[in-house]
Amino acid sequence: MNAIRIALGQVNPVVGDLIGNSALALETVASAVHSGAHIVVLPEMVITGYPVEDLALRPSFQQASLQATEDLAKAIDEAGFGEALVFVGFLRGTENDDTALGVPRGAPMNCAGVIHRGRLVTYYAKHHLPNYGVFDEYRYFVPGTKPLVVRAFGIDIAVAICEDLWQDGHIMDDIKSHDADLLVVLNGSPYEYDKTDVRRDLVAKRAKECGLTLAYVNMVGGQDELVFEGDSIIVDKTGEILARAPQFSDHLLLCDLEFPGKQKTSMTDTTVTYALDSSMPSIVSAIASTKNERVDRLEETYNALTVGLRDYVNKNGFTSVLLGLSGGIDSAFVASIACDALGPDRVFGVSMPSEYSSAHSISDAQDLADRTGLNFRIVPIKPMVTTYTDELGFTGVAHENLQARVRGTTLMGISNQENHLVLATGNKSELAVGYSTIYGDAVGGFAPIKDLFKTDVWALARWRNDSAESRGQTPPIPPNSIEKPPSAELRPDQLDTDTLPDYHELDAILHAYVEEDKSSTEIIAMGFAPETVERILRMTDRAEYKRRQYPPGTKVSRRAFGRDRRLPMTNRWQESR
Amino acid sequence: MNAIRIALGQVNPVVGDLIGNSALALETVASAVHSGAHIVVLPEMVITGYPVEDLALRPSFQQASLQATEDLAKAIDEAGFGEALVFVGFLRGTENDDTALGVPRGAPMNCAGVIHRGRLVTYYAKHHLPNYGVFDEYRYFVPGTKPLVVRAFGIDIAVAICEDLWQDGHIMDDIKSHDADLLVVLNGSPYEYDKTDVRRDLVAKRAKECGLTLAYVNMVGGQDELVFEGDSIIVDKTGEILARAPQFSDHLLLCDLEFPGKQKTSMTDTTVTYALDSSMPSIVSAIASTKNERVDRLEETYNALTVGLRDYVNKNGFTSVLLGLSGGIDSAFVASIACDALGPDRVFGVSMPSEYSSAHSISDAQDLADRTGLNFRIVPIKPMVTTYTDELGFTGVAHENLQARVRGTTLMGISNQENHLVLATGNKSELAVGYSTIYGDAVGGFAPIKDLFKTDVWALARWRNDSAESRGQTPPIPPNSIEKPPSAELRPDQLDTDTLPDYHELDAILHAYVEEDKSSTEIIAMGFAPETVERILRMTDRAEYKRRQYPPGTKVSRRAFGRDRRLPMTNRWQESR
Repeated sequence: MNAIRIALGQVNPVVGDLIGNSALALETVASAVHSGAHIVVLPEMVITGYPVEDLALRPSFQQASLQATEDLAKAIDEAGFGEALVFVGFLRGTENDDTALGVPRGAPMNCAGVIHRGRLVTYYAKHHLPNYGVFDEYRYFVPGTKPLVVRAFGIDIAVAICEDLWQDGHIMDDIKSHDADLLVVLNGSPYEYDKTDVRRDLVAKRAKECGLTLAYVNMVGGQDELVFEGDSIIVDKTGEILARAPQFSDHLLLCDLEFPGKQKTSMTDTTVTYALDSSMPSIVSAIASTKNERVDRLEETYNALTVGLRDYVNKNGFTSVLLGLSGGIDSAFVASIACDALGPDRVFGVSMPSEYSSAHSISDAQDLADRTGLNFRIVPIKPMVTTYTDELGFTGVAHENLQARVRGTTLMGISNQENHLVLATGNKSELAVGYSTIYGDAVGGFAPIKDLFKTDVWALARWRNDSAESRGQTPPIPPNSIEKPPSAELRPDQLDTDTLPDYHELDAILHAYVEEDKSSTEIIAMGFAPETVERILRMTDRAEYKRRQYPPGTKVSRRAFGRDRRLPMTNRWQESR
Repeated sequence: MNAIRIALGQVNPVVGDLIGNSALALETVASAVHSGAHIVVLPEMVITGYPVEDLALRPSFQQASLQATEDLAKAIDEAGFGEALVFVGFLRGTENDDTALGVPRGAPMNCAGVIHRGRLVTYYAKHHLPNYGVFDEYRYFVPGTKPLVVRAFGIDIAVAICEDLWQDGHIMDDIKSHDADLLVVLNGSPYEYDKTDVRRDLVAKRAKECGLTLAYVNMVGGQDELVFEGDSIIVDKTGEILARAPQFSDHLLLCDLEFPGKQKTSMTDTTVTYALDSSMPSIVSAIASTKNERVDRLEETYNALTVGLRDYVNKNGFTSVLLGLSGGIDSAFVASIACDALGPDRVFGVSMPSEYSSAHSISDAQDLADRTGLNFRIVPIKPMVTTYTDELGFTGVAHENLQARVRGTTLMGISNQENHLVLATGNKSELAVGYSTIYGDAVGGFAPIKDLFKTDVWALARWRNDSAESRGQTPPIPPNSIEKPPSAELRPDQLDTDTLPDYHELDAILHAYVEEDKSSTEIIAMGFAPETVERILRMTDRAEYKRRQYPPGTKVSRRAFGRDRRLPMTNRWQESR
């Protein structure tokens, strides 16, 4: 039997930070080797961060990524860890004109490099490129055409990258037919609801199909609208989980694997690209593997939102965030996420009451500040609104929107003066039907809950409060903010339900239309009034122009607005009749 | 000899308007047949409009497009034009599971339908799908795999769609080997600088390679950020131009073609999908074909901008536009485009002077209004700025941005009150380096010159004035707006050159970086100071978050900001050192 210790580096790189990411990779290898690991696997594109979008097309960036990876190989060796076999995701250009593929030299490839004894000894290029949802990999990469098997420590190790595992065909068939012992899979697999279970089942299924041990390492952390959840996992050839890392935090997942010795492959086997003479020390005392369980869906979503905001703020060098606090549920919930992500001392809230604001508008915001400890101030908007009205005589919708825009300008001014990142507090229901004021409540550099329907906001707010209570802590969100009927408070006694159906009904219709692509006929058949369905679908189509200018925010659903759902603004199609 | 009259319908459909587009197709066929045409060719996806983006993925939309195309076939027949052979672009789903391709039933295809005697008799599916620049067709469509040749009026007619013509390989090889007489190509090919000449050369080259007459029909009109320029063209097998439609206007291009009779193909040839018995009347008197010349590049660009704005406004149902007039070149030039696109009575300009505004700020705006006849008013912003300053004490950059945001709020308020579409007047140089105030001068539903560098704005403004003068008309743009040094006028004696290099230098650096993907090393080698290059590149990278929230605007360059150039906001890569 060959006993091998494998380490999966569930780490959080930053896009474009080749120096920082290489240092992170080196640290992870050092820590793994100090823990006795023979093999270290790092995520997809860890050297460049992921996704790099059109940076992949820049020759200077491709070259810098390759150089950084070769430098990492040297640095690992110089630090005394050269005997470890390291798999690392990086970007490189194709080496020669491949006329069969019609691919020019320098065409970008999404690669898994194999590092050993100071050299980048070989690499695998991702074969299956996802090109749906938020992914545009046919734009960014050319596909690899050859499998890679490395022989090390007496076993055959096959390599795959992310989408390769999800698609039947070429690469999986190759790996099956080679009869490898271990498959390492490098991933940048973004979070969405319930993908964790799908991923676990897929990993188990592939391990069984191919009859091998499968080590799946996923990136962790936020990058613009995406959050990578980690959840790295190792399963044996029966699909049984041997080790599983936590969701949403950095982790070095260690696991001892045993393989029956076999001698069938060698360098004469053309599939084997690299073979090393085993020279790592054997395992002295076995370790117990971590086996984290998936957390509850509400907790999981909350964690995704927290990490998404935290990393957008920190990776972009902001020290603090600023948001308007209306006393309502959306802003209270965003404030709670911000406090959990950054600590309350980095969160600044402003109550901006108008003549139509209820008394509880200010008191609920104050209650939130007291509960969380965030920095709080009150700026009445009446003087500015009055000046505009005196000078320009805005009435009706113009007057309603004016109030929201005075608030937007106030927040942006404070942000310019004090250097905060402004957070927009709109939810997915509002964004869908355009129930927001562009350049008003829609201002901000980041919109943490833009992919949460209103009913999800309520559920998560209740979960967050319950979770605090169960730990004996103060629930952060004022119960009154959760319980009171939602209102934009832009005219006397206004309620959201004046304009919109009840949120449970609205969200069900929106879910069917936006996330499931159902036709109006199908949605009506679910039991909703035809007039309501047609009105909501019409509102959703017409609000596309507002969504184009809305701030980015964390994707958690199967289909977020933005890159996940691309529709024309000029569009006369109506899902009806 | 067989004499055949062909008609190319260079028309302007609206995305999603299946009923309107079908009516437009029917009208075009009627007009063509009344002019004696045997064959009518309409553009790519004319039934749905183009590009439809994720609408392509909706089963209800695919079904509606197919139904509309079948209905069109019936309507053409019922109107008495059933003997004409009509090629029409439409969307449909695949018919059966194609397991070889891994394509499920209902996978969307970009098709050219053949309509004859009341039926959609066969169709061709686009084979080469563009997936670069603004195109994402691997996301929207599955590729067709078979060529289509139709036998009619004694000749063999091959079919291709847009990108098929641009790519060597499969489809072009098939057409070559079939020895067809005529190739009809249905297009939705968006405008960019100098593409006209490239397209003309490509059409001539393919006709010569395949030894056939080539009829290329392109859509015309604006769709969100794209403008289709028409420029439909027919060339003979030597590549000589037989007929050419104008750029940027609707046109029915008629041409008489003669072919030596041949009998080599019939329905026994498996490549021929459909054959009809010739029963159209023969040509009585030959027509002279139109042969338009390409217009000057400046005129062409100006036309693209005018059509782009006109169609965004009209197709979205706006009756008028509103913009701030600073007296500077950008707003004056946008106003000129708007007046040409919509007529001055549909254009509303507002001068919004502050305490830092020069006297010529108002007088130049007034001069513009007098020259063009647009609706003009003056709204001083001092009262609002003073109220904010008294209440909130903004200073420095916060105070500068405040002025821009008060203007933005003023424009949006007037827009809400009076129902205008607000135009943002920023240019590509500003957008690149982030020299604009988000939610301030950046507000608007459309940004007509966002893809024009500042130096291009000057050149086009001079061209527009010269062109008016040469026709004995009043030049629309005040010469002082063109000649004076650019200033944002947000603090005393401010000039753009306080912050930015001279625009000729800035634009040359930006062109190299943004449109040519040059590295900083390469740009420095062009002769610019390293500090300047690094500073400009850094500013460009950091402004990505502002561009994400900027209004849409017409693409004219090889690489516009937006879908043409996709970069992460969170991005530590620096093109330097």
